Amino acid sequence: MGAKPAATDTKSLLEGMGRDAREAARAMNRAGRRAKDRALRLMADKLVAGAAGLKAENAKDLTAAVAKGLTKAMVQRLTLSDKVIGEMAQGLREVADLPDPVGEVTRMWRRPNGLLVGRMRIPLGVIGMIYESRPNVTADAAGLCLKSGNAIILRGGSEAIHSNLAIAAVLQEAMSEAGLPAKAVQLVPTTDRAAVDELLKLEDHVDLIIPRGGEGLIRHVVANSRIPVLKHYKGVCHVYVDEGADLAMAEDICFNGKCQKPGVCNAVETILVHAAEAAAFLPRLAAKLPAVEIRGCPKTRSVLPQAKEAAESDWPAEFLDLIVAVKVVEGMDEAMDHIARYGSAHTEAIVTRDYARAQRFLSEVDSSVVLVNASTRFNDGGQLGLGAEIGISTTKLHAFGPMGLEELTTTKFIVYGQGQVRD
Amino acid sequence: MGAKPAATDTKSLLEGMGRDAREAARAMNRAGRRAKDRALRLMADKLVAGAAGLKAENAKDLTAAVAKGLTKAMVQRLTLSDKVIGEMAQGLREVADLPDPVGEVTRMWRRPNGLLVGRMRIPLGVIGMIYESRPNVTADAAGLCLKSGNAIILRGGSEAIHSNLAIAAVLQEAMSEAGLPAKAVQLVPTTDRAAVDELLKLEDHVDLIIPRGGEGLIRHVVANSRIPVLKHYKGVCHVYVDEGADLAMAEDICFNGKCQKPGVCNAVETILVHAAEAAAFLPRLAAKLPAVEIRGCPKTRSVLPQAKEAAESDWPAEFLDLIVAVKVVEGMDEAMDHIARYGSAHTEAIVTRDYARAQRFLSEVDSSVVLVNASTRFNDGGQLGLGAEIGISTTKLHAFGPMGLEELTTTKFIVYGQGQVRD
Repeated sequence: MGAKPAATDTKSLLEGMGRDAREAARAMNRAGRRAKDRALRLMADKLVAGAAGLKAENAKDLTAAVAKGLTKAMVQRLTLSDKVIGEMAQGLREVADLPDPVGEVTRMWRRPNGLLVGRMRIPLGVIGMIYESRPNVTADAAGLCLKSGNAIILRGGSEAIHSNLAIAAVLQEAMSEAGLPAKAVQLVPTTDRAAVDELLKLEDHVDLIIPRGGEGLIRHVVANSRIPVLKHYKGVCHVYVDEGADLAMAEDICFNGKCQKPGVCNAVETILVHAAEAAAFLPRLAAKLPAVEIRGCPKTRSVLPQAKEAAESDWPAEFLDLIVAVKVVEGMDEAMDHIARYGSAHTEAIVTRDYARAQRFLSEVDSSVVLVNASTRFNDGGQLGLGAEIGISTTKLHAFGPMGLEELTTTKFIVYGQGQVRD
Repeated sequence: MGAKPAATDTKSLLEGMGRDAREAARAMNRAGRRAKDRALRLMADKLVAGAAGLKAENAKDLTAAVAKGLTKAMVQRLTLSDKVIGEMAQGLREVADLPDPVGEVTRMWRRPNGLLVGRMRIPLGVIGMIYESRPNVTADAAGLCLKSGNAIILRGGSEAIHSNLAIAAVLQEAMSEAGLPAKAVQLVPTTDRAAVDELLKLEDHVDLIIPRGGEGLIRHVVANSRIPVLKHYKGVCHVYVDEGADLAMAEDICFNGKCQKPGVCNAVETILVHAAEAAAFLPRLAAKLPAVEIRGCPKTRSVLPQAKEAAESDWPAEFLDLIVAVKVVEGMDEAMDHIARYGSAHTEAIVTRDYARAQRFLSEVDSSVVLVNASTRFNDGGQLGLGAEIGISTTKLHAFGPMGLEELTTTKFIVYGQGQVRD
C-alpha cells in the first residue's frame, strides 16, 4: 500500500473501478429485496466472526498512527474494538430491516389521451464516498448504498487503509455468497492522493459523490468534481429564545444543543436572545453552562460581564467545542436576519410560546431542519425517523437535511400506452 | 453592449448580481401565490402591450445576425414576431394558473418522543439559467422560476442580447408593480464570455445552474461549475420492436418518433427490431419512412439492401435529422444491453404485446422516461402532465426527466416540539 503508483496507474485503476461499478450497478438495479437483505445480514455475521482478523489489520493502522504522532482522539476514532465491530454489524442488520425504497411508484396518473404515467423509485446507480478517519463508515455507507440498489466506490483515509481493506474484503465475500456482484462494493486500494481527483472525473461511471470529513476536504471535492456532490461544509446552528419563551425549556434546549456532544455538526454555536428576556435568561444560561465559554455581544456583556467579547469572526464560526456566541436581538426579524447572514442552512430552533412566530419561523427560516421547542441535536436521520443516515446535506439540490435510503434513489417516469403518438 | 468590459468588471458585476439575487430570493421565499400570479399576469399583459418596442430591439439583433451570416434557421429562431410574443404571454398566464408548489407539506409523522416531523416544499433559492438563441426562453424560464418562489439570473446568447434585455426590462417592471423585488429577475447585461465562468463560481449565491443549448456549451458548464448543474447532453432515444408486436402500431410509433420533429432531443435515433419480426417489419418501416436515411446492421441490410451500412459511430449518435440507425437483435436482453451501452438515459420505448416483457422493460431500462406502446415524443413536461417544463434532466440527482415546477423546489424538515432534547 505504501508504494506510490505512477499517475497513469492510478488513472487506469480508477477508470477500471468505475467501469466495474457501472456494470455491477445494472445487476444491483435488478436485485430484489431478498438478496440485498441476505447480503447485509451475511456482512454483519462475517464482520463479527472475522473480528480477530479485522483487529489485526487495524493494529497496523494504529501502529502507523502512533508513529506519525496522531492525537489520542484521532487514534481513538481509528480503533476497531469489538464494540465498534459489533455496532457495525448491528447497523447492517438494522438496514436489512428497513423497507426497500426501490420500485415504489410514488404517484400515477392518467392523461387525457389515455396514457398512464407514473414515477418509479430507482437506484441512483454508482455512488462515490470519500471520507476520513473512522473505518466503520466503510460498512455503514456500503450498507445503505446496497440496500438502495446502488454500487459504491469507497475512498477512505490513508490512515485507515489496512482496516478499510479488511472490512471491504468481508463485505465483498458476503455479496458473492448472496449471489450479488462483489464489484458493487469496491474500496480504492491505494493511498495515492491523486486517486480522489481521478474518482471525481469519472462522470460517465459515477452518479453522485458524498464527501464526509473536514471543510478542506469537502471544498476540494466540490471544486474538482464533474459529478454532482451532496455535502455540508459546516453546521453553524442557532437557537433563538423568543420573547415570553419558557425559560426552563430554553435552558434545557441550549444545554442539550451545546453540551451533549459539542463536536458534531448539529451542536449549537450561537444563541440569539430576545432583549426582553436577556436580563432574566442570560444569568440562568451562564449558570446552566458553567463549562462553556460565552462570547457575547455588548448587550450580552452588560448582563454577563464575565463573558468574553464576541468578535465578528465568532458569528459564522463552527466552534465544535464548549464555546458559544450569544447575541441579544430586538425581535424575531433581527434573529432571522442574523441567521440568514451568518448561518450555514443546517439547523435552527426557536423556543417560543407564540403561535404566529412559531409558524413564521418554520416557514421563513431557510435551513435544512427548522425546529420549534426542540433541540438542534435532532437533525439526524435516525432521530427524525428516516431509519438511518448516510450524511446531512445543506445543498438544496436533491436532498436537504439528513439523507436516508430514499435520498440514495431517484425517480424515473414510466408510461403505459396503447399505441399513442403525439399530434 | 459591444464593448468588452475589463475582466474585473465582469467579476464584480456578476458578484453584485449574485448578492442581489440572494437578497431577492429571501423576499420571494415569503411571497404568496397571489403576488406571484399577479406578477406573471402583468408580465404577460406588458409583453403584449410592449410588442412594438420588443420588435424594435429584436430588429437590432436580426440585423447583426444577418451581417454575421447566421443561417436562415438561426435567424428564424431569433425572431420575435407577434406570434412568438403572444406565445410567451400565453405561457406566463398558464404558469399563473398552475398550483403553487411552495409550502406544501408532503408528509408528516409523529416520532416516539412526540416530535411531529414534516417535509415542507420550499424554493431552491437562486437559479442560474444559461441558454442560447431563442429569446422567448427569457420569459419562459423566468415565469417558472418565479412561480416556484425562486430568483433567477439569466444569461442568454450574445446574438439575442438586445431582445433579451428588452424582455427582462418588461419582466422587472411587472415584478415591481406586483410588489415583488425586481432583482428576482436579472439578465446578465454583458456579452462578455467570461460572464458565464464568473456565474459558475457564485457558489454562495446561486443554488442551481440549468444550461440549455448545444452539447459543447453544456460540457463547458459542467466542467467549470462549482454549483450543481441539471442538464442533458443529448437524447439518443430507442424504440424496441418486440417479437409479436403489433407492427402497425410499431410503424406509427417509429414514424412519429422519427419524423414528427426530427431536430428535438426526444426524437428516435435508433430502432431495435427483434429478429423474428425483421423480415416482416423492416420493409414496412422503410415504406412508412421513405424520406428517412436508414443506417442498418448487416442483418438489417440483408432484408433492406438499399439501407446504408451503419458505422460504430452511428449507434451513440444523436442525428437530429431524417436519419435512423436500425439493428436486428435476438431478444429483449440484447436490446436492453444495446441501450445501456449506447443510450443517453433519455427516453426509450418498447412496442410489445407481451405482459412480462413490458413490465421488465419498464423496470430495468435506466432512462428518465420509459414507455410501453407509446411514442418517445411524450418525454415532455406538458405531455406528461407536469403543466410546464424548464428542461429535461438525464442527471439522476434531484430531477430525472422533464422538470416542472416541483423540480424547481426542494424540501426542508420542519419539527414541532414540546421541549424535547436528545438523550
